Amino acid sequence: MEEELSHFFGNYEPALKLLTMPRDTNSAGDISGGWIMTQVDTAGAIVASQVARCRVVTIAVTNFLFKQPVFVGDLVSCYGKIEKIGRTSITVHVEVCVQRNRFEDRCIKVTEATVVYVAVDEERRPREIPQNLKDMYIEKENSAKITERGQRT
Amino acid sequence: MEEELSHFFGNYEPALKLLTMPRDTNSAGDISGGWIMTQVDTAGAIVASQVARCRVVTIAVTNFLFKQPVFVGDLVSCYGKIEKIGRTSITVHVEVCVQRNRFEDRCIKVTEATVVYVAVDEERRPREIPQNLKDMYIEKENSAKITERGQRT
Amino acid sequence: MEEELSHFFGNYEPALKLLTMPRDTNSAGDISGGWIMTQVDTAGAIVASQVARCRVVTIAVTNFLFKQPVFVGDLVSCYGKIEKIGRTSITVHVEVCVQRNRFEDRCIKVTEATVVYVAVDEERRPREIPQNLKDMYIEKENSAKITERGQRT
Amino acid sequence: MEEELSHFFGNYEPALKLLTMPRDTNSAGDISGGWIMTQVDTAGAIVASQVARCRVVTIAVTNFLFKQPVFVGDLVSCYGKIEKIGRTSITVHVEVCVQRNRFEDRCIKVTEATVVYVAVDEERRPREIPQNLKDMYIEKENSAKITERGQRT
Amino acid sequence: MEEELSHFFGNYEPALKLLTMPRDTNSAGDISGGWIMTQVDTAGAIVASQVARCRVVTIAVTNFLFKQPVFVGDLVSCYGKIEKIGRTSITVHVEVCVQRNRFEDRCIKVTEATVVYVAVDEERRPREIPQNLKDMYIEKENSAKITERGQRT
Amino acid sequence: MEEELSHFFGNYEPALKLLTMPRDTNSAGDISGGWIMTQVDTAGAIVASQVARCRVVTIAVTNFLFKQPVFVGDLVSCYGKIEKIGRTSITVHVEVCVQRNRFEDRCIKVTEATVVYVAVDEERRPREIPQNLKDMYIEKENSAKITERGQRT
Repeated sequence: MEEELSHFFGNYEPALKLLTMPRDTNSAGDISGGWIMTQVDTAGAIVASQVARCRVVTIAVTNFLFKQPVFVGDLVSCYGKIEKIGRTSITVHVEVCVQRNRFEDRCIKVTEATVVYVAVDEERRPREIPQNLKDMYIEKENSAKITERGQRT
Repeated sequence: MEEELSHFFGNYEPALKLLTMPRDTNSAGDISGGWIMTQVDTAGAIVASQVARCRVVTIAVTNFLFKQPVFVGDLVSCYGKIEKIGRTSITVHVEVCVQRNRFEDRCIKVTEATVVYVAVDEERRPREIPQNLKDMYIEKENSAKITERGQRT
Repeated sequence: MEEELSHFFGNYEPALKLLTMPRDTNSAGDISGGWIMTQVDTAGAIVASQVARCRVVTIAVTNFLFKQPVFVGDLVSCYGKIEKIGRTSITVHVEVCVQRNRFEDRCIKVTEATVVYVAVDEERRPREIPQNLKDMYIEKENSAKITERGQRT
Repeated sequence: MEEELSHFFGNYEPALKLLTMPRDTNSAGDISGGWIMTQVDTAGAIVASQVARCRVVTIAVTNFLFKQPVFVGDLVSCYGKIEKIGRTSITVHVEVCVQRNRFEDRCIKVTEATVVYVAVDEERRPREIPQNLKDMYIEKENSAKITERGQRT
Repeated sequence: MEEELSHFFGNYEPALKLLTMPRDTNSAGDISGGWIMTQVDTAGAIVASQVARCRVVTIAVTNFLFKQPVFVGDLVSCYGKIEKIGRTSITVHVEVCVQRNRFEDRCIKVTEATVVYVAVDEERRPREIPQNLKDMYIEKENSAKITERGQRT
Repeated sequence: MEEELSHFFGNYEPALKLLTMPRDTNSAGDISGGWIMTQVDTAGAIVASQVARCRVVTIAVTNFLFKQPVFVGDLVSCYGKIEKIGRTSITVHVEVCVQRNRFEDRCIKVTEATVVYVAVDEERRPREIPQNLKDMYIEKENSAKITERGQRT
């Protein structure tokens, strides 16, 4: 019951792309859940801070699903998609897929999660996300959708 | 708005207890969210496998809350409490508290999460949790509660 | 010839509690002696700085005994007990026990050591341990002993 | 004198994409040269093994240039382009660019290198790269070029 | 009160020589005691296994002295000298010196320790050290002493 | 077709000497190419900064050859020899040899490289290497050669 990466991500570049190593394994020899969570958190934070143009901190993960194990030698791609931009918070949906043995063509979805970040200033105080950055993000999204539609015609 | 550790954990030993190090920091110099997630996942897995008496794998985190930052030099305690034992799955509620500078008396709650594990055999196939292990767990819990009540009189 | 943890530690919480990982192994595949020494040093330093309420530095280990190997997947508990408080130095006896496979009930003693720390200020100069902190420690110890005796009746 | 990423890579996805962390620094506080070399080697190996469909080992780096420093918090993208496919060897040109603070728009080229890999079997003996894999690679390249040209019209 | 390396080591090559990195620091920013202990243990084990020609395991450290702190960027040399060869055990005296900033000429002694190892077979059972290996070691030592004496004339 | 270490290095102490560990492996279980590159870069930087008496940064590697694999448990020695001292740059030839299983007598050459460093000040600006340091280096070299010749007579 392997699953495909969400349609959305098909035309995007991953936020993170990594090769798993023996030092990332748990005591059973698989890649540890903690290592995967770390990449999900980092990938989401990259996407969020690219909208907010500042540092962000994680405040919640509302739903983390581990669908398939990850093995040493897998090539791991983490995709992030903005779900919601609030006054100071940004919600990112992250999907992780792997190419087994780093060269298999198929990219199997192994994990997904919804992570909430808050934009902060140097003293870690919540910081409002300026309207122009929100607008810039929405504009970029729309033009991406148009391109996507265009390519399908 | 610092929070106390849940009452329940007052009489228990943590599943994990660690000192944070500079190598665990993110690019802002705090302990990274990924490091904390890793400890939560490991702590919950320890508690779950102590009931199931076998290996467990993480399948979901339904709710991860990050309430306070963690700094280098903090002493981190991770507590786990079984919430539900299913046919093959075990749900654990994990709470993490820190003693700042490793010697402050107060233990401030920094993170909590609910993590679901599945007991597996050597080939990673789900494996039923025997009734006697469930009974043994319940019995242990009850006697813990009695002791707890006793100590308060 | 497995050994029990010293009686003393029976009613105490460990200073550190960790799960061993494949990345902690030596070239023979066991947990490296250096990893164990590191935990012993850290555990003793935590206990010493909780008395001194400041930073401490290690100045000597008078006796390190490795009784049993430690394996990947073992749950390691490090206990520390103050042996002596000098003008600026604190001597801690550390015992390390493991639960094999992280879920065995028995906690086998694997290592013990006596480590000497010195309390230091920001510039790493030895710093006297105030009498009131010594008193506070002795008081805490005594009440712990009474409780211990009480529980045994 | 900052440099652009080679034109070629404009339409490609990186082979690796990583966020730098404090633990990757050298004693001066920058990201260490060794860390960057490691990513270059890994990125080239991923690209080479995706052609050869088997394990590859590094045998030479003919030219490694470090043009700009890399800092903690930079988002690092490593691109690889096949330069030559021999009987058992594959030469990959790797370019590395960074987005400062992980959210700057510009991707500054920091490093480039030409790395030679050899395809090997399980016993690490050189292994011929089948003609059909070479053909498959060339075909993919050509269609990529056409797309690229197409997009520019 | 800086100390010189023991005279003995003057004509020898270190068993280990390493550059300290930010990831090796403790929460106060110095190189952690555990990192230094790890190098001492490894250096002694190298020297012991070069006599025994097999794997060795650490069983005791009788005396560990930390005389000076170690900082990021220091070049660390660990010397080991056989003190005693028993039936299955080998006692090694280890001295550690550092060159500050990796280029200072002076090598300041920072740590010394006496470590006891036992030669073991594949199943970790103690294994007698053959007389011919002991003889070979003594012979090598003697010729080293002659050379040393010779060089001084 | 194993190769000897270059004659030159016979009378020198390595710049770095390390024991390989399981955490340094790649997904095939050998020591990763990146780990070896890191040691080469560090060893060359140590040698260069011992001439320049200041920080150096890597600007190029003109030729990296990997001749033999490195395994877990190998004892790795990295030797560096100054090839050229320019106005601000220093070129170092680095050779790496290993003793298999950390106790084999033979030291097999596994890697060599030529690395170029630039001496820099605190702000990472190129910094001229003073003539007296160049002279000091040449003098030291000459006396080393005389000793070497002397020993051979």
